[in-house]
This record gives sequence, structure tokens and C-alpha cells, in this order.
Amino acid sequence: MTDEGVRVTFRPSGTEIAVPLGTSLLEAARRAGVQVEAVCGGQGICGKCAARLAGGRVTEATAAEEELLTPRQREAGYVLLCQRQALDDVELDTGPGETAGDRHAKDYCGETAFAVDPFVRKTFHRLDPPSLTDQRADLDRLGLAARVDVELAGRLPTLLRQAAFQVTSVVADDTLIAMEEGDTTGEAFGVAVDVGTTTVAAYLTDLARGRVLASGSAANGQAAYGADVITRITHTMETPDGLTQLQKLVRRTVDEIVVRLLAETGVPSDRVYMVTFVGNTVMTHLLLGITPRHIAATPFSPVFCRPMQGRCAELGLESVPGRAVWRTLPNVAGFVGADTVGVMLATGIHDRPGVWLAVDIGTNGEMVLNCHGRIYTCSTAAGPVFEGASVRQGMRAEPGAVYRVRLGEKADIGVIGDTAARGICGSGLIDAVAELVRLEAVNKNGRLKKTDLPPGCPAAVRERIVTDGTGTRFVLARDPEVALTQGDISQLQLAKAAIRAGIGILLAEAGVGASELDGILLAGAFGSNLDPVSLLGIGMLPPIDPARIRAVGNAAGVGAIMALLSREQFALAVDLARRVRHVELSADRRFNSEFAHWLVLEKQPGF
Amino acid sequence: MTDEGVRVTFRPSGTEIAVPLGTSLLEAARRAGVQVEAVCGGQGICGKCAARLAGGRVTEATAAEEELLTPRQREAGYVLLCQRQALDDVELDTGPGETAGDRHAKDYCGETAFAVDPFVRKTFHRLDPPSLTDQRADLDRLGLAARVDVELAGRLPTLLRQAAFQVTSVVADDTLIAMEEGDTTGEAFGVAVDVGTTTVAAYLTDLARGRVLASGSAANGQAAYGADVITRITHTMETPDGLTQLQKLVRRTVDEIVVRLLAETGVPSDRVYMVTFVGNTVMTHLLLGITPRHIAATPFSPVFCRPMQGRCAELGLESVPGRAVWRTLPNVAGFVGADTVGVMLATGIHDRPGVWLAVDIGTNGEMVLNCHGRIYTCSTAAGPVFEGASVRQGMRAEPGAVYRVRLGEKADIGVIGDTAARGICGSGLIDAVAELVRLEAVNKNGRLKKTDLPPGCPAAVRERIVTDGTGTRFVLARDPEVALTQGDISQLQLAKAAIRAGIGILLAEAGVGASELDGILLAGAFGSNLDPVSLLGIGMLPPIDPARIRAVGNAAGVGAIMALLSREQFALAVDLARRVRHVELSADRRFNSEFAHWLVLEKQPGF
Repeated sequence: MTDEGVRVTFRPSGTEIAVPLGTSLLEAARRAGVQVEAVCGGQGICGKCAARLAGGRVTEATAAEEELLTPRQREAGYVLLCQRQALDDVELDTGPGETAGDRHAKDYCGETAFAVDPFVRKTFHRLDPPSLTDQRADLDRLGLAARVDVELAGRLPTLLRQAAFQVTSVVADDTLIAMEEGDTTGEAFGVAVDVGTTTVAAYLTDLARGRVLASGSAANGQAAYGADVITRITHTMETPDGLTQLQKLVRRTVDEIVVRLLAETGVPSDRVYMVTFVGNTVMTHLLLGITPRHIAATPFSPVFCRPMQGRCAELGLESVPGRAVWRTLPNVAGFVGADTVGVMLATGIHDRPGVWLAVDIGTNGEMVLNCHGRIYTCSTAAGPVFEGASVRQGMRAEPGAVYRVRLGEKADIGVIGDTAARGICGSGLIDAVAELVRLEAVNKNGRLKKTDLPPGCPAAVRERIVTDGTGTRFVLARDPEVALTQGDISQLQLAKAAIRAGIGILLAEAGVGASELDGILLAGAFGSNLDPVSLLGIGMLPPIDPARIRAVGNAAGVGAIMALLSREQFALAVDLARRVRHVELSADRRFNSEFAHWLVLEKQPGF
Repeated sequence: MTDEGVRVTFRPSGTEIAVPLGTSLLEAARRAGVQVEAVCGGQGICGKCAARLAGGRVTEATAAEEELLTPRQREAGYVLLCQRQALDDVELDTGPGETAGDRHAKDYCGETAFAVDPFVRKTFHRLDPPSLTDQRADLDRLGLAARVDVELAGRLPTLLRQAAFQVTSVVADDTLIAMEEGDTTGEAFGVAVDVGTTTVAAYLTDLARGRVLASGSAANGQAAYGADVITRITHTMETPDGLTQLQKLVRRTVDEIVVRLLAETGVPSDRVYMVTFVGNTVMTHLLLGITPRHIAATPFSPVFCRPMQGRCAELGLESVPGRAVWRTLPNVAGFVGADTVGVMLATGIHDRPGVWLAVDIGTNGEMVLNCHGRIYTCSTAAGPVFEGASVRQGMRAEPGAVYRVRLGEKADIGVIGDTAARGICGSGLIDAVAELVRLEAVNKNGRLKKTDLPPGCPAAVRERIVTDGTGTRFVLARDPEVALTQGDISQLQLAKAAIRAGIGILLAEAGVGASELDGILLAGAFGSNLDPVSLLGIGMLPPIDPARIRAVGNAAGVGAIMALLSREQFALAVDLARRVRHVELSADRRFNSEFAHWLVLEKQPGF
């Protein structure tokens, strides 16, 4: 506490800021440039700006917190940043959270405003019982225009009489999907799911209030059959029942997360009426049990791009009622899926004036470029390096992972969970390579220099370059040793070149130069945790003021939430998927030379 | 053969007519007043005017016959009356056919014209295979706006490639229900089904050409659980799984008939896309597996009146593809069902100027009155007497049934199939009672006179009235004896009074007298076989010129065919069901006194 006010420190970044007494913690975070989620713009509605109070005193808990934080969160010291002000110097932990999965699912894309107008409508009916002067049939008495299937009609007479003719109807689109005793109009829930190749994230959403109640994630159960989409497709082609098997695995993953979210919030399963899915094109095919084999080979044509829908029983989902409706957002092409459409929705990139690029960095790098209203997409195969799969000591961003590397007179090596390092995750890999490039400890071809290190290279770096029988490596930690190998650097080089080539071709297709970019949006749980400076340092992104690079979190998942909550947003997604110009890089003559060009690891100007 | 031309004799009625050489047999039938089916108006399209040539020579078979008659029919000597002319005196058998069921199903309602515009649309797609410059998804390539479910989408990629991208889509309403290899647009079939309490009739229909290909019927498998709807309802309430059991039985009956029709015509089951059902309200509930229990007790409210729809798999139908769509026509009330709506469609009663009454005589007597555009309906419980169930030697109209009784100096007793009599069917019962009333051999209370017979009563009648230990009876045939008992007459009296009371109340409700009736339409397989004169003779119908009474055959079934073939007709059915004013007789103070009044069996003026 100073004369100017109070000091707020954000962990794990360590960013500090002094703000006047009475400033909300959210405002402090914004001023400090700390990325926090606040989909409602700080009105205490979305509950996404939760952070753990690690020290110091803040104002009292508010009613909004009572409602939006789980008891477990409140016990653990979580507060909503928008609801509190510091009473003296405070320390806040804004993540990374306990697990990469939790963090992934909590990522959010900033302020988005849209009308809540879900496909699911509940109506309370206070009916007169039949009499000799009013013999209307039970179903006609409800006065619904919706379609009613036989099974539900069959249960109606008993329900109506049990409920003394006071019932609530649930209509999804044009179909009656449930009838409930009494007035239950306030209880309407849906789930938005982002089916990632590596991680599945789900968001339990209150359809009546337009609010995400809980989110969670888990590793995609299909991972045992390959880290990337191509190996998954291969599995479906080579194994009898492989398709059914993979469908079952991802379905189980979804069920597992949803069961957890329901338990966490106390929402009864039978009040869930709709599930909206995004995912890449192969994932949406596998989820629906539809063969993705024709996506794997030229001309890479999927079975469906348009949005699909049905009842959850058809997909075999067990965590939600079989009658609940599911929908997928549309895909764009074989390698640009509904997740990218979700990113467009969430970022509103199509509406931004000027030239904007969104990149979803993962096993595939999907990109969207809005050049003055014309929208382009493409996708490049980056490989599983960012998920740590082809890195010798690679791991997901979980406790023990090296996630930050700063090399100066001392080596500053950040480890998730402040425990002993046991591996390296994607952001750590990129940081490390960016630092080695900046210090010219690797050459243009990506070879780690054993000798000829520039004179300015600090001792802390030199002593970490070790050569022995197994090759040359850069040691990040000892006991146990965690090191970056020459092979790891090469893997990153390939991935970086693929993504940079894709960006280059999109820009060329649109006829604009990189210098005209107004901003770059980094989507995806992974992209959001990367240091823009490091990304520029390895040349994965075109040169741009780092302040113009913005992480937008799991924008695909947010897009799914938006489409779950709003028919207008869903329709917009369908429109966007139709409007985009997809550039198929595998058919593009430019790709190979661009790729070769961007393999080079070069110290960037200004670094 | 005379100078005037040729003589055409119709069996079994024996009606004869002389017509000029070159007159079509259909025209001869019309002039003779013989009821034959000719939905296409004699253009050789509908194939319904088939009759068996029992003697004489006629012109050669035509191409239309080749197409419309089965080989079995042609071998048995069947011709289409509209296609042939007599070359000398001929004798034709227009029915009753081999079984009551066959005759039932072949009944038709005369000329009806409407546009063929079915819910099911087939479209041939000649598609370009995907290429690197055209990567559209398989499904998007079809360019269909219809909904597509996951299972069908899953089969699409293999089918498209097998079929070299030349496929036919089948869309019912707004949903894709099948995809077929090659161009199969010419093969589209549907089934119209009339689910009667006693008999189920089905019509296999060519949706592309708007033509009934074959029809058949069978006893409703539920009959073992009661002859009327009330005993069926009781069964569902008293037996666990009774509802499921009855649903299964009627489903099996439908399956049985459809399998037969498919075999007869060679139509492949997988080219059947739609099934349209009519039936009384209890039958439609049982068919759908929806409890009819609330129809049985005051206030008699059904679960649904509005049209229902779904996929055939939901009903458990096995004779048609599970993906085929079914629809029911709307019901009007608990005891005025979709079958009555079918009668309205088929007879166009709502469009007739003046005052028209349609009566569907069966276990329930359903009536429709159009009084200058206002339409009224009601229903009365006639009991199973017309089906022969409460008649001591009652039987259905099958070989061995006494179906016609004329009492004069000689007793003319007609037996179906010209075999020895073994029972009496509804038309025989009504004929017999009408004759006994005319001859004053029964008194007003319906007692068969043992003594006091009027002097004019022929000996042939007197000697047939027998009294012994078992009571008094009227003997119709000997060896074996077939006789009408006092109890049989009482049963008919009750049924007649119920129907006549219903008619009386409808007329009163509309504020018209019986004398203002422009015509009476007798619907139903049963009603069509009744002698209007006999119906007037027992006072079941209000006094009217018998020439104004017209049998319209199984109009309910024809209504189902019309609704199957035409969306406009289906929409009209929905509109009619909404427009009619239903008079609930059980709630009507007038009913008991009307009923008592009409119990009297009185010799009618002019008889």
C-alpha cells in the first residue's frame, strides 16, 4: 500500500500494478495487461473472471459470487475480479490452474455480446382439465404447433393428470422434446462442446439466463489411436469397427466431462435439452460415426460440411437425455472445421474493419484472414509438436512442465506448479527456441551451436549446451534433467514453417502484405498461452507490433456456446461457413516453396 | 344377343341390361345401376373396375389390363370393365368376391379427381465427383435443403462412390429418408391403411403415377380381445402390457397384408416410403401404442386428435423400411376418428350443396351431416350386430353367409358363394328383419309373431316361424339350419335405434328436417352392401327416396389413399377435422328419448 493506492500482483506472471483504492481487480488486471476472461464486460454475470486470492485483503464477497462460484471455488479462495476491490496490497493467482485441462476450459475470449435466443423454448401451460363441454384431446389442449413424437405423446395422458394439468413443454426447433410436471421454465440447460483432437472441452450453460455455469475438459479418449487426425483416420480404415470404436471413445470423453459438470453444479441431467458441438472436420465426422476416410486422401472431400443435427440417443450419449437435441456447427472443408467457424463467431473477425488474421495453433494450424470483408481460410499440418508429442521430453501443460524460458545472465525457467521440472510443454519449447535464436545459439538451419557461440552469449546459456554420445542438447533443468534436443528444435522448425507458409499464402491470396495486418488473434487453449514475442522471435508470425497480437482463448468453444445460446449466432455460423473462401494448400503450387523458405530460423529484426 | 344389342347380366345381383354393341361393360354396369369401382372415371388408370367374366365373349385384352391386373387375376378371367365391350350376351361376376376381406378392400367410392402431389419426392442427381477444384462435401454436393440424419449421412459416401455419383434422393416432408443408386425416380410407393375395429384394409399405391396397384384386407388381430373398442380398451387397462400386446397385434395385421400386397405386385419393400393411416380414434391410439383409456370414460378425451407422424420403425412395422414415414389423418373426437375424416375427403361431402348425410355403419355408427356448409358429426354405439358378433348364427360376409333375403310367395335366400348356408351376415339380417316388418310378422316391439300373422303373410314365411323349447326363430335355411332368433332381432333393434337417434339429433342440431335431405351416403364396406330399401324398411334411415341413397364403399380407405397421394388433400383433412362441429351424444339430453323413440319396428309408409 502506497500513497498512490494499492499494489496488485498477478501470479504466475508476476506482473504488478499500482491502482487507486476502490479500483476493481478486473480493472487492475486490464491496466496491467493481464489476460483475464470477462465475457460480460465486468458486470458480474458471466463468472469467468474468477481468480484465486493468494494474499492481502479485498472487499466482501458479493451476491454475484455466491451465485457464480461453486462452494469449492469459494473455499479455495476464488473471487470474481470484477466484484472485488483491494483493501491493501494483494496478490492474485490468475492461472495456470491446477491442470492444463481446467485452464483450457476456463479460457475465454473477452467481451462478446449477443441476444440469448436458444433453439430450446420452455412454456408453462396451466390447462383446464377435459370436461363434457371441452373434450379436446390432451395434445391439442396444449396448443403447441410443434411436432410430437409417439413416445412422448404416449406419456402425456398420465403426466397431465399427475400434474393436475399444469405442465411445462420443452420445444427444440419445431419438435416437442419433453413435458415436465409443474412450472420448470426456469430450468433449461445446454452443453457446448469443443471436440479437439487432443482435448475435449465442455461448457454447461444456462439457456434461460445465457450463462456458462461450469466448464471442464479431458483428454480425447481417441488419443490412444494416434495423436493426429491422420492416424485416427488410418485406424478407422485398418481396423474393423475402428470407426465405431473411435466414436465410442470420444462419446465417452464427452459423457465423462458432462457428468462431472452436472455433479459440480447440481444441474439434473434431465434438464439438459441441447448439446452443440464444434471440432475439426475429422473430429465431427468421428463423433457422428461417419467415415472421415475421404478426407485423408486427395481430393480430401468430407461427407458433410453443413450443420448436422439429431437426438442425443443417436450418438449414444448417456450423460444427457436421449431426447435432447444435438447440433454441429458447419465445417468449411476437410481440414477447416466447425471449430474454426466457432473461432470466427467468437472473435467476430468477419466484422472487424481492416485486415485481421486469426490463427488456431494446434496439431493443425487453421487460419482465418479477414481482408476488408473478404474472408479466407486455410489449414496446415503442424504436427503434434505443440502438444509435446514429437518432443523427446515433451508433455502437456501440466504441473512439472517447463512453460517459460528467459535466457539472460541468469536462466529464468518457469515450471507449472512450482515443482521440479519433469518435461517441457509447447510454450516452453517456443520460448526456449526463440531465446536460442535471439542469442544466436542456433544457426539458420536450426542447428544448436556447440562452438562459435557469439561473444555476447551469456555463460548461463553456454554451460547448458551439452554434447555427449546421444547428441547435442540444451539443458533446461537438472535432477532430473529436462533438456531440449536437436531433434526437438527441428520438429518446431517444421511446424513453424507450415504455419508461416499458410499465413503467407493467405496474405498473397488476399493480395495484402503482412505490414497491412491490423492484428493477429491467437485462438485455442494452446495459442493463448504462448508469448507473442517468442512467436515473433521464431518467425512463426509475420513481423507485427507484439501489442497487436491478442490471445482469445478457446474461441472455438466460445463460438459453440454462442451458437447454443442464440439462433441468430447459429445462423451466422452457417452463413460464415458458406461465405469463406477456402484455400486448399495441398492443391496450391506455392506451398512447397513457401514452406522451404520459412524453415529458416533467423534472428528477427528488433530482437 | 337381340336386335337392340347385347344383354349383360351382373352376378351375384342378377341385374340384367341390354346395351348397344360397342358399349363398354363399365357403361353397362352404370346404366344397370350396378355399383362398380372406377376411381379414374373409366380411363383404364385405376384398375378398380375389375370383374370376372363368367360367360360370353368380350373384346380383346388391352395394354391397360396387362399393366393393372395381376397374372393371377387374368388367369382367373378378370377383366377391366372399362376396357371391354361385349361381343355377345355376357355374364359378369362383380362380387361379392372370394372373401369378405377381398371385397371390402376392393370397394371404392366412385370418381374422385385430385392432383397427385405426395409428401414423398424423389430426385435424380447426376453429380460431379469431388476434385481438388471442387472439394464440396458429399452431402452438400446433393444440394438438398432437407434434413439428413446421421445414419443416412453415414451411408452416403460409400453409396455415392458405388453409384458413380448418380443417385436418387427420397425426401419425405423436409427429411431425406433414403438414397438410392441410379435413377429410381419412377419407383415410389406408399400404403394407405384403414384400421377398422374388425377389418384392416390396405392399399398399395404408386405415388409416382397416383394409382392403387393392389389392395387387401384381413381381420384385425386384436379381435381376440373383444369385438368392440370398449372391450379392447378394457383389455389395455386390466392386463399388464395389454396396450403393447394390442399394438403388436394390429401391427402384425398391417404387416401381413402389406407383405401380401408387395408379393402380389412385385413391388420391393424398400421402395415403400410412406404409410397413411385412418381408423377410429381408439384404433389410431392402439396402433400408436398410446393409451385410449381416457376415451372410455367421461369426458371421453383422447390423447391426440391432430395428425401424428413418425418413422415406421417407431411403430414396429416390419413390412416396410423403418425409415419410411407414417402419418395418421386427424381424429375429430373420442368416437369420431380419422376414418370419418377419410369419409369426408372421399365423398367430398363438405363441398356438396344442400343437405347431405354420410353414415358409416359399423360397431360404431359415425355420421357426418353437411347442412349448407356447416358440418356436424356424431357417433353412436351400434354394437357388433352388423359384424354378426351378437347374432346367434351371425358371421362375417364370407362364403356360406346368408346375405340377401326376399320373402314373397317363395323365400329367396341368397348365400355368398352359392354354397349351403352356414350363418347370417349383417346385410342378410337387415334384409330378413325388413321383410318380416314389411309382412308384419314382427310387431312394433320386435317380437316375432307366433300367431296373429296378417292374412296376407305368405305360407313360405309362416312355415319358417318355428317355436320350440329354445324359443321362437325364423328359419332361413335347413340342413344345416340357419335361423334368426328373437334375440337377434332385438340386437338389430338396439343398433338401429342408436343410429337413427344419432341421425335425428344431428338433424335437430342443424335445424333441418329429414325431408330436406338431398341424399344419404352409406360408407364402409358393410354399409355399401346393404340394400337401401331394407334400411328404410327397418327405419334405420329417415324416409327418403331410395334412389337418393348411395353406397360409397370403403370411403375411409379411399380418403387415406387421397391423403397419401396429395398434400393438399391431407391439409384439407386437417382443416375438415378442425371445422366440424362435434355433437357428443353421451352428453346430450336428447339422446335417451330419441333412442327409446326409434326402438319401435314399424312398417314404413310405402312399404
